[in-house]
Amino acid sequence: MRIVLDAMGSDACPHPEVDGAIQAIEIFGDEIILVGDSTQVRPLLEARGNPGKIKLIHAEETITMEDKGLKLALKAKRKNSQTSMAVGMDLVKNGEADAFITAGNTGGALTTAYFRLGVMDGVERPGLTAMVPTKDGFCVVLDIGANPDCKPEHLLQFGIMGSVYAEKALGVARPKVGLLSNGEEAGKGNELARAAFPLLQASTLNFFGNIEGKELFGGDVDVAVTDGFTGNVLIKASEAVAKLLVDVLRESMLSSTRTKIGALLAKPAFTALKGMLDPDEIGAAPLLGLNGLVFVGHGRSNAKAIFSAIKAARSAVDAQLIEAMGSAIQEQLQQTS
Amino acid sequence: MRIVLDAMGSDACPHPEVDGAIQAIEIFGDEIILVGDSTQVRPLLEARGNPGKIKLIHAEETITMEDKGLKLALKAKRKNSQTSMAVGMDLVKNGEADAFITAGNTGGALTTAYFRLGVMDGVERPGLTAMVPTKDGFCVVLDIGANPDCKPEHLLQFGIMGSVYAEKALGVARPKVGLLSNGEEAGKGNELARAAFPLLQASTLNFFGNIEGKELFGGDVDVAVTDGFTGNVLIKASEAVAKLLVDVLRESMLSSTRTKIGALLAKPAFTALKGMLDPDEIGAAPLLGLNGLVFVGHGRSNAKAIFSAIKAARSAVDAQLIEAMGSAIQEQLQQTS
Repeated sequence: MRIVLDAMGSDACPHPEVDGAIQAIEIFGDEIILVGDSTQVRPLLEARGNPGKIKLIHAEETITMEDKGLKLALKAKRKNSQTSMAVGMDLVKNGEADAFITAGNTGGALTTAYFRLGVMDGVERPGLTAMVPTKDGFCVVLDIGANPDCKPEHLLQFGIMGSVYAEKALGVARPKVGLLSNGEEAGKGNELARAAFPLLQASTLNFFGNIEGKELFGGDVDVAVTDGFTGNVLIKASEAVAKLLVDVLRESMLSSTRTKIGALLAKPAFTALKGMLDPDEIGAAPLLGLNGLVFVGHGRSNAKAIFSAIKAARSAVDAQLIEAMGSAIQEQLQQTS
Repeated sequence: MRIVLDAMGSDACPHPEVDGAIQAIEIFGDEIILVGDSTQVRPLLEARGNPGKIKLIHAEETITMEDKGLKLALKAKRKNSQTSMAVGMDLVKNGEADAFITAGNTGGALTTAYFRLGVMDGVERPGLTAMVPTKDGFCVVLDIGANPDCKPEHLLQFGIMGSVYAEKALGVARPKVGLLSNGEEAGKGNELARAAFPLLQASTLNFFGNIEGKELFGGDVDVAVTDGFTGNVLIKASEAVAKLLVDVLRESMLSSTRTKIGALLAKPAFTALKGMLDPDEIGAAPLLGLNGLVFVGHGRSNAKAIFSAIKAARSAVDAQLIEAMGSAIQEQLQQTS
């Protein structure tokens, strides 16, 4: 297995990438290819005593958080683009690597993947996913931002892609797929959700029906499907609520000696909460519907997050996710044609 | 001031309603009219030694959580409807009361209000609001479910209604109004949000621009505007995240003697968190855009929540909210015509 890692992705790049790659090499022993500015990466790799299996491929440019619009499109599409994302994804495209990981600009990764890997045959829109912590584990939520305006068929395809990912890469048998709506009852929804409901119901998916936050965070479904606008608002609001609660709690804990002592004693209890809110445990979430595996992690990724991202990508490669997803999409197209 | 209270609204009705009304009478001294099944309400009122100013008006029927569709529409619209909501709102319509409060079926309240009070002149869609706790106070979010599909003009009117409510009833000077979107930059959004942005910007509102969860829960705006589908998903997801975190924390706290002792010592620190998540502090949120003040509280309302709802309704009556909102809507119509 050969994993390509964008060395220039995270806010603190290339340190987390180099350290995460070294950890992964030591545990998994796969080939890892770091792509990025070799003048920055090589000294670091050498200082860590590169365990040998980490290859370094130089890429002159990077896609930054400021790149957007036409500038981003050109960096992503240009034939000889020398951004670390373009160089890395070209390796996947040419069969020289099995998956690409970046902790960089999500829109940049999506745009680069769109132009360089292309959209899977039969897929109308690729989807951005998030792995959302729930009571019992995780829920794959998509789309969380690639497509602010969707058609009902897109939501059906998100359901198929999410379900295949949950089954193959996460090992969930017959994943339950829920449709985010403004009420649990069938018939609830905006125009889009109401039109997507019968498509999901008539599909071969294990369709759970409409869901609200309660079902999503309660762990009732393995996959939650929505348009990229609602999904994005949902994810960002959830993160903001969690942050607000933790901030309020932390501030109150520090407000008196008594509560400080209490907090110290209760510290082990905060570990579960911390673990649940720790994006480093998840590492990265996949872009689905492309001709190649691409995982995008948080800009604040540390070495542990990069390691987790590599682990997630490995599972997808192992499961031959692209082939499985292609078959599922073709099956759906035949069923509805 | 005369407040009508649906005695049959909350899950534990009419106990919280009777107790909340008595508390409010003792503190504010206004006239309160309880509407509901007098065979249930009267004995309770007498057992509490009705302090005199609480009037009781009998209403034969109630709107339950099961009422929906045509059945609900008929109960809401029928000329001689005897539901507690219809009887109560008719008092407001006929000028015999200044505001109506219920902790019952939100859709029932909205439908009854729509048919009995009617929509304010110039308002295209009434909006359901929620008062969302933030870092520094509250944010008025609307629409949270009355209109799953909206037009850009509806979002502008939600902005105006939310702003007038924040200014007049909550006392916020020049309320900042944000537009929920999938990114903070201007230009981000689905079709609806992108079309609403210039309308909000050209209005006389104190428009903050696009917002995400970070700004909403961080207290950067006083009003957050969105369609009823996204708003509903947002509110329910936020509640579910908060519940999940509190559940995880509680469970971990009880997992060992050490953490139990820690939790006991740290107890005062949890009070801030509890207060923030306590819907009873808010009591009820207004339906905006109707010819009359209607406040809807949570089904799980207790006496404290009913008391808070009465307090919120009083502020709106005091501020002559309906008149102020009517003027603001007329101003906007003149500006854009």
